[in-house]
Amino acid sequence: MLQAAIRAGVHERRCVFETFTRRLPAGRRYGVLAGTGRFLEELDNFVFDDAQLSFLQDHHVVDGPTLEYLANFRFSGSIRGYAEGEAFFPHSPVLQVEAPFAEACVLETLLLSILNYDSAVASAASRMTGAANGRPCLEMGSRRAHERAAVAAARASVVAGFSGTSNLEAGRRYAVETIGTSAHAFTLLFDDEESAFRAQLDSLGRGTTLLVDTYDVEQAVRRAVDLAGPELGAVRLDSGDLAAQAVAVRQLLDDLGNRDTKITVTSDLDEYAIAGLAAAPVDSYGVGTRLVTGSGAPTSSMVYKMVAREDADGRLVSVAKRSRGKGSTGGRKHAARRLDRDGTAIAESVALSPDLVGGPDFRQLMHPLVIDGDILPGSTGPEGLRSAVARHHESTRELPRAIRRLSEGEPAVPTEFLDH
Amino acid sequence: MLQAAIRAGVHERRCVFETFTRRLPAGRRYGVLAGTGRFLEELDNFVFDDAQLSFLQDHHVVDGPTLEYLANFRFSGSIRGYAEGEAFFPHSPVLQVEAPFAEACVLETLLLSILNYDSAVASAASRMTGAANGRPCLEMGSRRAHERAAVAAARASVVAGFSGTSNLEAGRRYAVETIGTSAHAFTLLFDDEESAFRAQLDSLGRGTTLLVDTYDVEQAVRRAVDLAGPELGAVRLDSGDLAAQAVAVRQLLDDLGNRDTKITVTSDLDEYAIAGLAAAPVDSYGVGTRLVTGSGAPTSSMVYKMVAREDADGRLVSVAKRSRGKGSTGGRKHAARRLDRDGTAIAESVALSPDLVGGPDFRQLMHPLVIDGDILPGSTGPEGLRSAVARHHESTRELPRAIRRLSEGEPAVPTEFLDH
Repeated sequence: MLQAAIRAGVHERRCVFETFTRRLPAGRRYGVLAGTGRFLEELDNFVFDDAQLSFLQDHHVVDGPTLEYLANFRFSGSIRGYAEGEAFFPHSPVLQVEAPFAEACVLETLLLSILNYDSAVASAASRMTGAANGRPCLEMGSRRAHERAAVAAARASVVAGFSGTSNLEAGRRYAVETIGTSAHAFTLLFDDEESAFRAQLDSLGRGTTLLVDTYDVEQAVRRAVDLAGPELGAVRLDSGDLAAQAVAVRQLLDDLGNRDTKITVTSDLDEYAIAGLAAAPVDSYGVGTRLVTGSGAPTSSMVYKMVAREDADGRLVSVAKRSRGKGSTGGRKHAARRLDRDGTAIAESVALSPDLVGGPDFRQLMHPLVIDGDILPGSTGPEGLRSAVARHHESTRELPRAIRRLSEGEPAVPTEFLDH
Repeated sequence: MLQAAIRAGVHERRCVFETFTRRLPAGRRYGVLAGTGRFLEELDNFVFDDAQLSFLQDHHVVDGPTLEYLANFRFSGSIRGYAEGEAFFPHSPVLQVEAPFAEACVLETLLLSILNYDSAVASAASRMTGAANGRPCLEMGSRRAHERAAVAAARASVVAGFSGTSNLEAGRRYAVETIGTSAHAFTLLFDDEESAFRAQLDSLGRGTTLLVDTYDVEQAVRRAVDLAGPELGAVRLDSGDLAAQAVAVRQLLDDLGNRDTKITVTSDLDEYAIAGLAAAPVDSYGVGTRLVTGSGAPTSSMVYKMVAREDADGRLVSVAKRSRGKGSTGGRKHAARRLDRDGTAIAESVALSPDLVGGPDFRQLMHPLVIDGDILPGSTGPEGLRSAVARHHESTRELPRAIRRLSEGEPAVPTEFLDH
């Protein structure tokens, strides 16, 4: 595409591309945008290095002029979009790129890869923290995702309210709280469970969390209390009927005088399992597989479509394809969330004319992120993540209570196109 | 775990860990192992750098002795396992690590992340190439996966028979065939479809593939043939009823004299959609979202369990946890595929005693990959990928024809534990 556009002399035509999803995953009430900060961090370093250029040259992937174009590539366009952490709905224009065609075209895969994956995890994570209703959720899914995706998953989980992660690289990059866990292999390494517990308490102190289901749960809890006393931090259950065991273990801990020792549960949890444990005496949830794989929706199905471009006379004209079932709406969009008098969201409002989504009933959703190639401060690194956490919290609070329903249904608010 | 083991003086205890899955994704007949080569490449570079060590120190994640241990980390153990590309079944011991506890423990997340993701993609890809029954399948899903996972997905797809990928980084790293595509945005960039087609033909020659569904398919096909003549390489359909359109487009191309122009189809394909197009005049399939997300099974649920360790006297003893529903079988396993007289697989045979899986009825599945820290040649880089492609081909040919059934069912061969 790039090579043919350069050869035809149209690669510098100014274009507007929009990123949106045509529908939410089946039955979901809302999505949560994540990855914007990561995308801007990658954009800041987005160049083609010598090894990459040599590959393209040696394998005749592109011609000379295209190679030269890529060697000098530096994004010079502007980007605006929803704040990271914001809820989104079908056709929400979450990211809008205005740039020469060649630049907008080259960025497509990077942009979609990041937003599609990170938003899939954040959207699942938000349902889980909602179901946990204030109890801490901890991300522990690194081993069930690609090794780099795991870092992004940890970050996206935190955007949507997770308290911490077992992924140390995410901790290092984004100043996220990290946690350790002891696995069954740790217990099995020792000649008996008592030696394992002793070693962990010696090294990590009484505030640690002991895994109590390697052999017999009741014996393990008694042993843990015996060794650590009333200051034992927590015990972890990782198998079996978690609700029934939590009740029994809570009773046992209380009987032994360990009223402050907490119970944390793990083992293939998702939002439904978490909701099912709402009445059980559980203090925190460790979530893995279902979180990093988007709980049934491992991608957000976001697409990146040209909606306007310069014509031969330099005027920006709306464009849209007419493919069956996959058509898109031409023209650069503006978006706001329409609120009722109590400040509850009642619609996702999208319009070609900014005037139609102005005024006190509307909260504006699109903000500048990059202006003429300069990335605005505040959206990247630990600072960007903190803002995204706050935005997710505010955004979900503003939505109708229906978003907390886990049953399948329609989006919590309808998307309205105000120009039509 | 590491810190407590070091403090207790047991971190050097020799251990055997095994990687396996307790079950295949619901209804699947077999899995395909992928990622072994990538894991060995990462293992070769697996050290902790200064930035990582500083983070661990500054945030008091681990104590001084543990920090020192990590600063000097270098894997010294041995690894054997199934060849990459091999089919696997529940409890197949696909990778077995024998090393001091500390080393085996530190590798867990990297190893599982890679095998879980890459095998999920390869397992889905294998069903797709099976359904395509010889027609080329092309990987085009980068935008629907994390940006680094996308490279791994392209590689894993090729393991399982895909012919090429749109991911250039995978091409660069693994000498995989790469392809380009023109999107609807390319057509929309021009003032009309004819200009877009002309530009593409000018730049890429008549052998290129023109996208014909931006406006009207029939008009676009006539225009494409008009401009390119009988040498037009292919046309691509990306929306609507692909089977019906393929029939109409084939007829039209033939009527126009373009009998050699091929038809390629894309648009949310998976193994079922591919099978549904078996009778349609389609020449190749471009597969995206469903491929890179494992077609409903985005992770392989592989676990990494300690099955044996040294005791205080230096003897290797079998160990296993007794957790409810998640127990494992202790002891170092040997594995072979049991074949009938025609060479068709009839069982996945697993035994603690190697003698039980010896003899002419058995094909050995476990091979040395790393010996005392030295990675054996042949499994990494482009060479490793070529071997994996061949292994996948041979392995699936040996399985019962039932593996080609897309309906849900039992594993194609049962797993038998010969010691019990």
